[in-house]
Amino acid sequence: MRRMRFDDFAFEEDGSILVSAPIVTSENLSTPVTARWCVVKPGTSSQRHMHFEAEVFFILSGCGVAENQDSTLEVTRGDALLFPPFSEHSIRNSENSVEDLVFLTIYWPSHADDEDAAVKGKGVVQGKQVLVIATPPTPNGDLHLGHLSGPYLAADIWTRYLRANGANAQFLTGTDDHQSFVEHKAHQLHQSAGDTARGYGGRIRQALTAAGVEVDHFVQPADSQPHREHTAKLFALLYEKGKLHRQVAPSLYCSGCDRYLFEVYVRGTCPHCRHRTGGNGCEECGQPNECVDLLNPSCNLCGQTPEFQPLERLVFPLEPYHEQLRDFVDRACMSTHLRTLCERMLADPLPTVSVSHVSKWGIPVPIPGFEGQVIWSWLEMAGLYLAGAWDIGQKSGWELSGDAFLNTPDLEVVQFFGFDNGYFKALLLTALYLAIDKRGHLPSTFVTNEFYRLDSKKFSTSSNHLVSVLDFMRSADRDRARFYLCYTRPEQEQTNFTEEDFAATVQRELIDGWEGWLRALGKKIQTRFNGVAPDTGLWTQEQRHFENRLRDYCTRVEHFLSAEHFSPSRVVRLLSELVRDARGFGIAESHWANVRTGRDMERTGAALELAAARALAIASSPIMPEFARQLWDRLGCTPSLEEHGWKKLVWYVSAGASVDLDQTFFSKGSLWNPGRSA
Amino acid sequence: MRRMRFDDFAFEEDGSILVSAPIVTSENLSTPVTARWCVVKPGTSSQRHMHFEAEVFFILSGCGVAENQDSTLEVTRGDALLFPPFSEHSIRNSENSVEDLVFLTIYWPSHADDEDAAVKGKGVVQGKQVLVIATPPTPNGDLHLGHLSGPYLAADIWTRYLRANGANAQFLTGTDDHQSFVEHKAHQLHQSAGDTARGYGGRIRQALTAAGVEVDHFVQPADSQPHREHTAKLFALLYEKGKLHRQVAPSLYCSGCDRYLFEVYVRGTCPHCRHRTGGNGCEECGQPNECVDLLNPSCNLCGQTPEFQPLERLVFPLEPYHEQLRDFVDRACMSTHLRTLCERMLADPLPTVSVSHVSKWGIPVPIPGFEGQVIWSWLEMAGLYLAGAWDIGQKSGWELSGDAFLNTPDLEVVQFFGFDNGYFKALLLTALYLAIDKRGHLPSTFVTNEFYRLDSKKFSTSSNHLVSVLDFMRSADRDRARFYLCYTRPEQEQTNFTEEDFAATVQRELIDGWEGWLRALGKKIQTRFNGVAPDTGLWTQEQRHFENRLRDYCTRVEHFLSAEHFSPSRVVRLLSELVRDARGFGIAESHWANVRTGRDMERTGAALELAAARALAIASSPIMPEFARQLWDRLGCTPSLEEHGWKKLVWYVSAGASVDLDQTFFSKGSLWNPGRSA
Repeated sequence: MRRMRFDDFAFEEDGSILVSAPIVTSENLSTPVTARWCVVKPGTSSQRHMHFEAEVFFILSGCGVAENQDSTLEVTRGDALLFPPFSEHSIRNSENSVEDLVFLTIYWPSHADDEDAAVKGKGVVQGKQVLVIATPPTPNGDLHLGHLSGPYLAADIWTRYLRANGANAQFLTGTDDHQSFVEHKAHQLHQSAGDTARGYGGRIRQALTAAGVEVDHFVQPADSQPHREHTAKLFALLYEKGKLHRQVAPSLYCSGCDRYLFEVYVRGTCPHCRHRTGGNGCEECGQPNECVDLLNPSCNLCGQTPEFQPLERLVFPLEPYHEQLRDFVDRACMSTHLRTLCERMLADPLPTVSVSHVSKWGIPVPIPGFEGQVIWSWLEMAGLYLAGAWDIGQKSGWELSGDAFLNTPDLEVVQFFGFDNGYFKALLLTALYLAIDKRGHLPSTFVTNEFYRLDSKKFSTSSNHLVSVLDFMRSADRDRARFYLCYTRPEQEQTNFTEEDFAATVQRELIDGWEGWLRALGKKIQTRFNGVAPDTGLWTQEQRHFENRLRDYCTRVEHFLSAEHFSPSRVVRLLSELVRDARGFGIAESHWANVRTGRDMERTGAALELAAARALAIASSPIMPEFARQLWDRLGCTPSLEEHGWKKLVWYVSAGASVDLDQTFFSKGSLWNPGRSA
Repeated sequence: MRRMRFDDFAFEEDGSILVSAPIVTSENLSTPVTARWCVVKPGTSSQRHMHFEAEVFFILSGCGVAENQDSTLEVTRGDALLFPPFSEHSIRNSENSVEDLVFLTIYWPSHADDEDAAVKGKGVVQGKQVLVIATPPTPNGDLHLGHLSGPYLAADIWTRYLRANGANAQFLTGTDDHQSFVEHKAHQLHQSAGDTARGYGGRIRQALTAAGVEVDHFVQPADSQPHREHTAKLFALLYEKGKLHRQVAPSLYCSGCDRYLFEVYVRGTCPHCRHRTGGNGCEECGQPNECVDLLNPSCNLCGQTPEFQPLERLVFPLEPYHEQLRDFVDRACMSTHLRTLCERMLADPLPTVSVSHVSKWGIPVPIPGFEGQVIWSWLEMAGLYLAGAWDIGQKSGWELSGDAFLNTPDLEVVQFFGFDNGYFKALLLTALYLAIDKRGHLPSTFVTNEFYRLDSKKFSTSSNHLVSVLDFMRSADRDRARFYLCYTRPEQEQTNFTEEDFAATVQRELIDGWEGWLRALGKKIQTRFNGVAPDTGLWTQEQRHFENRLRDYCTRVEHFLSAEHFSPSRVVRLLSELVRDARGFGIAESHWANVRTGRDMERTGAALELAAARALAIASSPIMPEFARQLWDRLGCTPSLEEHGWKKLVWYVSAGASVDLDQTFFSKGSLWNPGRSA
C-alpha cells in the first residue's frame, strides 16, 4: 500500500493547464494505467488533442465545459468524462469562474485492447443476429464422415459458440435435391428422383441429429411448394430485370442417350487444370466450365463422345459484377485457398454461365419458350438461402426487411462449405445477390475446408469408399467422434481418417489424458476435501503462473473460435494442452498434502485445478456438448452450463459445491470398430 | 465523449460501505479498467480483502484510515492509495467524523500485466553475470540418459539461451568424487577410489561433450589440490566461527565389516516416508536422515544388523538459520515439489546433521581429534561452488568480491538438479552459505527435475538398467536426442524413455514434421523464386494473421526459456506447433502460384514462411544447436547465428539471399537402435 498526497505532487504547465507527475505508472504499480491530477485556472483551457489512449476525467472541484468534435458538455464536481481512443477533446474553466477546475485523469494505451481484440477476434455481440449456413448436401447417398468433418460439424460448433455468447444465431441447411446427381442416383436405384431425394434427405437429417448437429431450419426443396414457388418467382424477377439473357450456343448432346449433357452426365478434362472432371465445375481446381469447353468430353451414361448442338438457354453473365465482386472479395473473410480461387477468376473477365438446363428433374423455367428446361440448382440455392433466412428470422425474432439478409445490415451471414463449392458460393451466389439488389448486404465470412480422406483415399459416395455418419455415431460415441473429427479436420490441407488413428487418438488424448486427469482430480477432492470444492487459500508463485497460463489457453481458444480465425483443430489441441498442463500442475500440487502447514496452499492448488476443469467444460462445450454438460454438473456448478453460457472462463467452482469427478467420461463402450458396428 | 454524473449513480451496500455502479467498464470504453465511487459513512469500514486486480483509491472528500498487512495510513482529500495485486486492504471512516469519506476506486485485472511479465519472464539483461550450476554427478558409473535428461541438458540449454541474449553466463559442474558411492564402486571393481573417480569422471566429461553440453568449468575434486585445500580451509573456518559443533552421539557400526555406516554403506526404512533407503537422505521423499534413525538398518556390505556405538563427530545444526531459510524459500524460484519439501522441513525445527564421517575416502577433517574422519561430501559441495564461481569468474571477467557469489549481488546463481537433491541444495547448502556469511547473496532459482524412467523402470547405475549417454550419442544423432530428451523431460512428473517412442517421435515430429516442411519450402523457393529469398509484396489478412501467430509462438518460447518458467518440454512442443502451422500456411499460400495476379501475395507468403524458418533457427538454437546453425546457414542468413544471437525473432530473410533448404536435416542415418550401436 502506498499513499501519494495531492500537495506533494510537482505540477508542470502543459499548454495552459497544470498537470501533476504521474500518480499511477507502470513503474509503481506495473500497470498500463497512468493517472494524473490536473488543474485548469479560470479563463484557461486545455488544448484540443486526441491520442491512441482511452481516457477518463473525474471532476474533483470547480466546474467547466468539455468539448469534442460533436458535443459540448458542462461538467462539475462529481462528473466523469469518458473519451474513447482517438476522440478529440478539450476542457475549459470559464473566465467568470472563481475556482480552479481540478480533475483527475486516467488513461491507458488502447492498443492493449486492440491486441485483445486481435487475439479474441471480433468478439460476439449480445443479441447479434447471425445466420449460419452450411451448404446443403446432395441427397444421392448417406452423409459420410467426409461431409461431417467439413461444413456441418464446424457450423454446429460455431453456432453453439455464438449462442453460448448470447448471439441470436440460427443454423440453416437442407438438401440440394435438384442436383443432377440425385436424378442420376435415382436412375441407378430404379426409383424416382423425388423418392431418392426424400429417402436420403431423411437419412441425412437423422445423421446430423446423431452427430449432435443441431439445425434450426432444414429445407428439402423437392417437397417444398413454397420453395418451388419462391425460386420460380426469383428466376422470373431476374429475367425481367434483364439480369438473365437468352443465348443460343452450342451444347453437348449425346445422341445415344438422347440427352443434353451437363454436370453428372458428362466427363472430360478440365480446361483450366487438366484434371478429369464432370460438367459445370471442377472439384480439383474449383473453377467452372460450360461443358462444351471440356476437353475430350464423353457421356457419363454410355461413354459415347457427345455432339455439339445449338441450344437456346438462359444465361447469367457475371462480368457486370466484376468491380463489386472485387471489392467484396477484398473485404470478406475467407481462407487463402478460396481467396486465390477468387483472385484467379477476377484476374480475367468473369464467365457467363448457363442457368437453365434441359432436364426433367428440377424446377421448370417459368419463362415462355423454355419448356423442358429446369432452373440450374445453383441458382436455386440463392433462393433457398434468402427464403430460408426469412423463414428462420420469423421464428427467431430477427428484425428483417425486404429480401432477408440482403436488406438487413444487422444480420451477419456466415457460410460453411467445402473448397470445391468455393466459386459457386463466393462469386456466383454473390453475383446473384447483387443482381437482385445491387446494394445488398452480403455474407461476411466463408469458412471452407479441404477434402477429408479415408485410408488415404478421397471419401467417395459413388465408389462407396466411405464411413457413414449413422454407422459411425452408432458405435463411436458422439463426443469422441466430434473430438477426433476436429482433431483431424482438413482445414488447410487434406487430412486422413483411419480407424487405428481414431482409436489411438481417443485413447491417448481423451481417455488417458482428459479422463485420467479428471478422475485423479476427483479422487483428490474426495480424499482430501471430502468431495467438496475448496476455496482458494494462500497463493504460491507457481499457482499464479498456472492461473496465468489458464487464462492464456482460454484466450487462445476464443481466438480460434472467432469467425476470422476459426479452427476447431487448434481448439481441441489447445484443450489437450490445457489438460496436460493441469495434470502436471495437479501432480506437483499434491505434494502439499505432505506438508503440515500446507493446507492453505493445497486448497488453492485444488481450487485452481477445479477452475481448470470448469474452464474445460465451458471451452469444450461447442465441440463436445454432452461431455461439457456432464463435467459442469459433476463439478457441482450452477446454474446449468446452458444458462451460464460462455463467460467467466477462468473462475472458481463455488466453495462447498459437491464434486464428483471420479467417473467414466470417455472410456465407456468399445472404440469404434466397423467390423462390429450394426 | 460521455458524461456520467455522481448523483445519477445507483449505490449499493457492499459490506458496510456504499459502492456505485461502474463508471468505466469494458462495455462503455472497451477497457480493462473499472471505476466506481465509494462512500464510507462515519464509524464504518470496508472489509479487509485482497484480489488479483491492482487498485487505486483517490480520496475525494472526508478523511479516514487505510490498513493493510504491514501499515496503517491516515488519508484525506487529495490522497491516492495504491494497492498492488494480492495486497490486503481496508479503509475506515472514524466514529468521530462528521463527514462521509468519499473515494474513487479504479481497478484492473493485474493478469494483463502479469501476463506480459509472465509471458516474457524477467528477461535477460545484456552482460548480466550468471552462474549456472548443474549438480556434479557421482563418478561411480557412466552418465546415462536419466542424468542427461535432468540437470545437464537443461543447464546447457539455459546457458546457451542466456549467452545468445548477451548475458555473461558460465556453466559450472564437475564430479562428486568423495561420495561414498565412489569408494563402494571401487571396492567392487577392485581398484582405488581415486582411479574410479578419475576413470568415470573422464567418461562423464566425454559423455557431456558428446551430448553437446558445453561446460565452462569442470571440477574433479579428488585430483584438485586447490579444491582440497579450499575445502579444508572452509571447514576449519566454519568450525572456528562456531558453526560446527563437536557432538558425541550414537552411530551405526558394523562389527563384521569393522566400519561405521553411512550413505551407501547402510540400508533401512526411511523414518519419514517408510520407503527403503540408504543413509543420510531418502531418494523417495527427499528428506534427510542421520542413519541411526533408519528403521531396521542393515549393513549394505554384509547384510548384518549394525550396532549403535557412541562416536564424536562434527555436526552442523540448521535450526539457527530457520528464519533466514524461511525468507529465502519464500523468495526463491523453485518447483512446487521442491517448495513443498522445504515447507515440510520448515514446519518443524530443522535437524542437526553430521558433517564428518569415519572413512578413508575424502578430505580429512582438519580439526585435531578427528583423525580418521573425512569431510562430508555435501559440505565439500558448498566449497566447490564458491571456489568454482571464483575460478570461473576470473576467466570470464566477472566482477567478484569476497566469497564469490556470496558477496557479489550482481551475480545471479541458478542451480539445476534432480528433486532427490532438493533438501541438500535448497536448505543445507543455503544454511552453509549463511553460516559463512549471514548477509550472503544467495542463489535465486532452483530448476529441478523428477526421475526419468527407462521402459517404465527407474534408471539405475547399480543394477545396470540404463542407456549410457556415450552409446546413445554415438548412434542417435545429437540434436535428435536432445529434442527427444526435452520432449519427454520429467519436469513435473516421472516420464519414460522407450526406444520405440524415441524412433516414432523423431519420425513424426522431426522428419515428417520439421524436415518435411523445410524441404517443401526449399522446393518452393527453388522452383518459384530461383532459389532466392523473395521480398514481401502485398499482404492479405491471412498473412497478417500468420505473422501474429508467429510472434505469439516466439513470445511463448521466450516465456518457457525464462528461469521462472523454464520448460524445455513446452518449448519443443511449441516449436513443433509453429512448424505445423507454417506447413499448413505454406500449403495454402502455394495456391497463389495459380493466380496470374497473385505474384505479390505469393512473395509475401513465401517471405513469411522463410521468416518462420528463421525464427525456428533462432528459437531452436539452445536446444538443437547444430540443426539451428545448419538451418540458419541454408536460409542464407548472415552474420552467423552465433554472432546474430537471440534477437529479432520474427524478421525476414534478406531478399536475394540464397536459400537451400531441400536437404537432409534429420533423416540422415538410422534411428538409434541399441542392438546396432557400437
